[in-house]
Amino acid sequence: MNIGIYGATGYGGMQLISLLKKHPHVNLLFLTSNRYSGKKFSELYSKFAGEVDDLLIDELSSYNLIGDTDLVFLALPHGVSMHHVKKLKSLNPNLKIIDLSGDFRIQNPDIYEKWYGSDHVLKESIAEFAYGLPEINRERIINSKYVANPGCFPTSMLLALYPLIEEDMIEGKIISDSKTGVSGAGRKENQNFLFTEIQDNTYAYNTGVHRHSPEVVETLKDLTGNEIQFLFSPHIVPSSRGIFTTIYLNLKKSFTIADVDRIFHQYYDKEYFIKLIDFIPSTKDVNRSNNVFIHYRFDDNSNTLIVYSAIDNLMKGASSQAIQNMNILFGFEEQLGIDFNLYYL
Amino acid sequence: MNIGIYGATGYGGMQLISLLKKHPHVNLLFLTSNRYSGKKFSELYSKFAGEVDDLLIDELSSYNLIGDTDLVFLALPHGVSMHHVKKLKSLNPNLKIIDLSGDFRIQNPDIYEKWYGSDHVLKESIAEFAYGLPEINRERIINSKYVANPGCFPTSMLLALYPLIEEDMIEGKIISDSKTGVSGAGRKENQNFLFTEIQDNTYAYNTGVHRHSPEVVETLKDLTGNEIQFLFSPHIVPSSRGIFTTIYLNLKKSFTIADVDRIFHQYYDKEYFIKLIDFIPSTKDVNRSNNVFIHYRFDDNSNTLIVYSAIDNLMKGASSQAIQNMNILFGFEEQLGIDFNLYYL
Amino acid sequence: MNIGIYGATGYGGMQLISLLKKHPHVNLLFLTSNRYSGKKFSELYSKFAGEVDDLLIDELSSYNLIGDTDLVFLALPHGVSMHHVKKLKSLNPNLKIIDLSGDFRIQNPDIYEKWYGSDHVLKESIAEFAYGLPEINRERIINSKYVANPGCFPTSMLLALYPLIEEDMIEGKIISDSKTGVSGAGRKENQNFLFTEIQDNTYAYNTGVHRHSPEVVETLKDLTGNEIQFLFSPHIVPSSRGIFTTIYLNLKKSFTIADVDRIFHQYYDKEYFIKLIDFIPSTKDVNRSNNVFIHYRFDDNSNTLIVYSAIDNLMKGASSQAIQNMNILFGFEEQLGIDFNLYYL
Amino acid sequence: MNIGIYGATGYGGMQLISLLKKHPHVNLLFLTSNRYSGKKFSELYSKFAGEVDDLLIDELSSYNLIGDTDLVFLALPHGVSMHHVKKLKSLNPNLKIIDLSGDFRIQNPDIYEKWYGSDHVLKESIAEFAYGLPEINRERIINSKYVANPGCFPTSMLLALYPLIEEDMIEGKIISDSKTGVSGAGRKENQNFLFTEIQDNTYAYNTGVHRHSPEVVETLKDLTGNEIQFLFSPHIVPSSRGIFTTIYLNLKKSFTIADVDRIFHQYYDKEYFIKLIDFIPSTKDVNRSNNVFIHYRFDDNSNTLIVYSAIDNLMKGASSQAIQNMNILFGFEEQLGIDFNLYYL
Repeated sequence: MNIGIYGATGYGGMQLISLLKKHPHVNLLFLTSNRYSGKKFSELYSKFAGEVDDLLIDELSSYNLIGDTDLVFLALPHGVSMHHVKKLKSLNPNLKIIDLSGDFRIQNPDIYEKWYGSDHVLKESIAEFAYGLPEINRERIINSKYVANPGCFPTSMLLALYPLIEEDMIEGKIISDSKTGVSGAGRKENQNFLFTEIQDNTYAYNTGVHRHSPEVVETLKDLTGNEIQFLFSPHIVPSSRGIFTTIYLNLKKSFTIADVDRIFHQYYDKEYFIKLIDFIPSTKDVNRSNNVFIHYRFDDNSNTLIVYSAIDNLMKGASSQAIQNMNILFGFEEQLGIDFNLYYL
Repeated sequence: MNIGIYGATGYGGMQLISLLKKHPHVNLLFLTSNRYSGKKFSELYSKFAGEVDDLLIDELSSYNLIGDTDLVFLALPHGVSMHHVKKLKSLNPNLKIIDLSGDFRIQNPDIYEKWYGSDHVLKESIAEFAYGLPEINRERIINSKYVANPGCFPTSMLLALYPLIEEDMIEGKIISDSKTGVSGAGRKENQNFLFTEIQDNTYAYNTGVHRHSPEVVETLKDLTGNEIQFLFSPHIVPSSRGIFTTIYLNLKKSFTIADVDRIFHQYYDKEYFIKLIDFIPSTKDVNRSNNVFIHYRFDDNSNTLIVYSAIDNLMKGASSQAIQNMNILFGFEEQLGIDFNLYYL
Repeated sequence: MNIGIYGATGYGGMQLISLLKKHPHVNLLFLTSNRYSGKKFSELYSKFAGEVDDLLIDELSSYNLIGDTDLVFLALPHGVSMHHVKKLKSLNPNLKIIDLSGDFRIQNPDIYEKWYGSDHVLKESIAEFAYGLPEINRERIINSKYVANPGCFPTSMLLALYPLIEEDMIEGKIISDSKTGVSGAGRKENQNFLFTEIQDNTYAYNTGVHRHSPEVVETLKDLTGNEIQFLFSPHIVPSSRGIFTTIYLNLKKSFTIADVDRIFHQYYDKEYFIKLIDFIPSTKDVNRSNNVFIHYRFDDNSNTLIVYSAIDNLMKGASSQAIQNMNILFGFEEQLGIDFNLYYL
Repeated sequence: MNIGIYGATGYGGMQLISLLKKHPHVNLLFLTSNRYSGKKFSELYSKFAGEVDDLLIDELSSYNLIGDTDLVFLALPHGVSMHHVKKLKSLNPNLKIIDLSGDFRIQNPDIYEKWYGSDHVLKESIAEFAYGLPEINRERIINSKYVANPGCFPTSMLLALYPLIEEDMIEGKIISDSKTGVSGAGRKENQNFLFTEIQDNTYAYNTGVHRHSPEVVETLKDLTGNEIQFLFSPHIVPSSRGIFTTIYLNLKKSFTIADVDRIFHQYYDKEYFIKLIDFIPSTKDVNRSNNVFIHYRFDDNSNTLIVYSAIDNLMKGASSQAIQNMNILFGFEEQLGIDFNLYYL
């Protein structure tokens, strides 16, 4: 199967490539980047010296191999992705696309335009994209050609919220306090993410105004029909990897923590990558794997249901989930090529 | 002024000593530790070679210099401190005491015993201890001989909450999601706090059951007469220093964010160590200083008031705040010997 | 193939297990630990929840399954390993053994006893152990039943030195300045390796007296017949993983850097895991892989040949190299189950 | 005393300002930066909110207050500094200057031009600059108006080498293997120093070709008359602060380690900031102080003298040493305003 990757040189594209090079059914056909065109991948990431060196990074605008390509991953910034989708669809109508940007995650273009602050140039195609969170949307992915790969924070939040919202167990305001490592900020030069600025530093940012907030609200509305009142509060912690999300909810009086437990098991017991555990997880539990660790408990004192989830932002939050979606699109075993859990340290 | 320190060799005692050695009115008379008796301080912390080397660390049980001592700091575990207080009061009735443990922070001994799981042996003296958070309890400290130095998390939370609760501006549940570096866990051998275990790791612990929870609730009740419904949710982040607290509150309908702003300024504009800022702070803003950075904003979408506060857990959260209390007890300028803000890195 | 692991719960044993669980020919038969007997592996490393949970950790002294075992790995402290070897040999003469301790690395027991400070109880068996550095000792490993898996530092140094010493290109003193992350110190409670003690800390230790020094000298003597004058100078840097070694040598006048280059390529061009690169490597280049990155240059000014090598101390420096040796012992493809290079971050 | 700082906004300038604001004799008159002109210092470093906010950062070219200025610090890149010196000398002949760049450290302009790759525009003034390492060059600093503040690595190396070279105790090649944190790379946007790139990463760079190499060789020649054969081998370790230098030397046969010890004590026993210790130091011993920790030992096996030194690169390696020089230039007590050793963590 021939694969092309647009935006191969950021951390997302890099993680994708480093996993795909071990996937038994994948032939990497081309890599693109407008910044590093003409270079070998290992000139950018010397760690992979000798591994994908037969492949030169192409210009971002290059489309010459699209006719022979079965699937492209778009690891591009939002606003850029949609232009590529438009072109790619016209060049090869059979091409499958997995977009890692935010451009096709929100079904309602008005909400997209409000939160992303830019026009959507391909509104008519949004509905063709399945939201690529297999554990809660597998059927639509199977039947799609195009997948909008979820954001890192939304992955951690939606998996924790979906069963509760689908079963209508929650009332009132939902507060999600997430803590992320800095690899999500990418490899761009940026004073704020220098080692010296991040070490021993923790802070909140974009409280209530982060673009991943409407992604959660809209996706839950699409999938369950229920609307939530939601506050998303992201934080930076001095790590490279990992997202830890703590969600505070009000359980409807008709439910108990036993119901919560029953519902989570009902939804997720057969899911290969979701671990419902009886302790509070840590990001260390999931670093460098596609796993999701979820735990919940009820605080009687404050009458609060707390749901914890931990994922690796570059894996389940981006690249390995994109491959999980690829496996679904092509009928492979879902865990093929992403079933690694090799490193505690 | 002659000073003794019980429990000199943990990080709290160490930070206290390293500050006190520069204080113009302080003579360090003795240091104790039951673990490192007979050693010099710089054998434990080689960084201070030559600086407090004339002073041998004594046994923890040693009381021989108490008659000549003006003030002792107790940097001991809870449950141990109270036994020392009992003895010290009997040996020198004029002695002033600043206790950094939790033993005298909670006025109601039943609540202490419930949360700390051990009997209080000096219930009759709890009321003699002023809660040592100068910015909200200065008058009682001035008129006291004994000070219960606040916990690190409560310092970050109480300063953020007090004006709002005193002015009765809040209704419903208060959720406080705090993130702390690991120096609070001390210097004890502990597998969980090895470098290899903490690097790139973030997790919640003791949600709703941390002992700093009743410290906040009871202190607010004592100082304002108001009771709150409170959920304290602490987290570990891979740092040495710093506490970042994000508090989610429901503002009563009769108030706006402008009222919040006005009240905070009314309470804190004259406070030397509190900075009310117009951006979200970070722990880097306060590391290695006695400063507290506070910010607040209102999220219309979820109808939530968010208050952020950042402190250094070993400074304002422990040792420099203890010296601030000492300065008050002895009538020195409050910032004397703790007015350092020297290191961004 | 049935495998047992003695000392399964340290970082070395843990890394071994997490790799072996994916190896196509391995059946994990038993895990032992005298400290955590009766527990499941995932109770110690929650990250692996559900993955090796059918296997209870046994007592260290347990030998009941040895008759059915094809190979054991000993991930035990030096001085302990040799006692197990003695017992294991008597219980099952067909059993293959890969020992990760230092007990059988040095062929001369007098030198072992001098540097390790303890008697060797199995001197007669030392010669049965092949030194398990495949790239320079493959033939002896193939023909052995027992392998002494190299130390982490010696792996980084021997691969950099062997071709030069074998070809007799060096004269005078060899200085090796190595920098290691702290995972080599293991998971034991240890004040010195707390996060708070290691962050932003770099220091030398055991200069000239580290036990890995005679391992290098003796191995080179055994394999090449040449003796070297050697100073090994290890350092701790604030990382979890990685060893970076900088070696300073005097090239004999009859040789040039071109000869060095030619010889290294002659020895290593066919080695799958060794990358001879034309830039200075970094530990990031090798973290979480079995790769070795080697570079060399000549400084005219000081007339010095510098050889740099980078390895992952837990992988090529311990566990994945042990599996490489296993693959050789059993005739599998050498890179089977250790051919991962998935994570730049 | 009126002070101006050119290049106020890098880490060097920032550390200088954060120390000078506490110095009893200093009035900060102006700060300049060509990048952040018009901003307040605390807009760049929010940690210092309210502390130096009356001072707007000026354009780098601004000279309007020079007539009222007693001293300027130049915290500028090499090649830029010399142009400012030229202008400043002409504007105010009484002005004292402390230059933190490399422009006036090397007395021989040919060597400067060779290693720095650019013309020196003020060769005639180089001799007016005293090399500002007080512990080995105090007399010349006292009698100078201009000081070339030493580089960070050279400070760590020269203090370790000077007594040995001055006493002519060394023969043959000297190898200095240094390990530094990344704050020396500054606050510029730079992909290589992102948190994600530096965490768990260690590597050598510029072996034999770093500009701090001739600074050591030339300064020793100037001060002692002796020439050395020198290899400087710097490394990056994942820290913010700290330089750890390990120097390998050949002691002349006529000397023993006892002589080394005697000489070091003879030279440094009266030095306030140098600690000759009987253990190997660590960067943690000196972080955030102006102290230098030095240790030495002799390895009989390899016939090598090893000297270890640890400094804080931003303090003794740059800013606090610049203030030490200022104190000397103006006849203040040498440790005034830099005598802090407050933080172990």
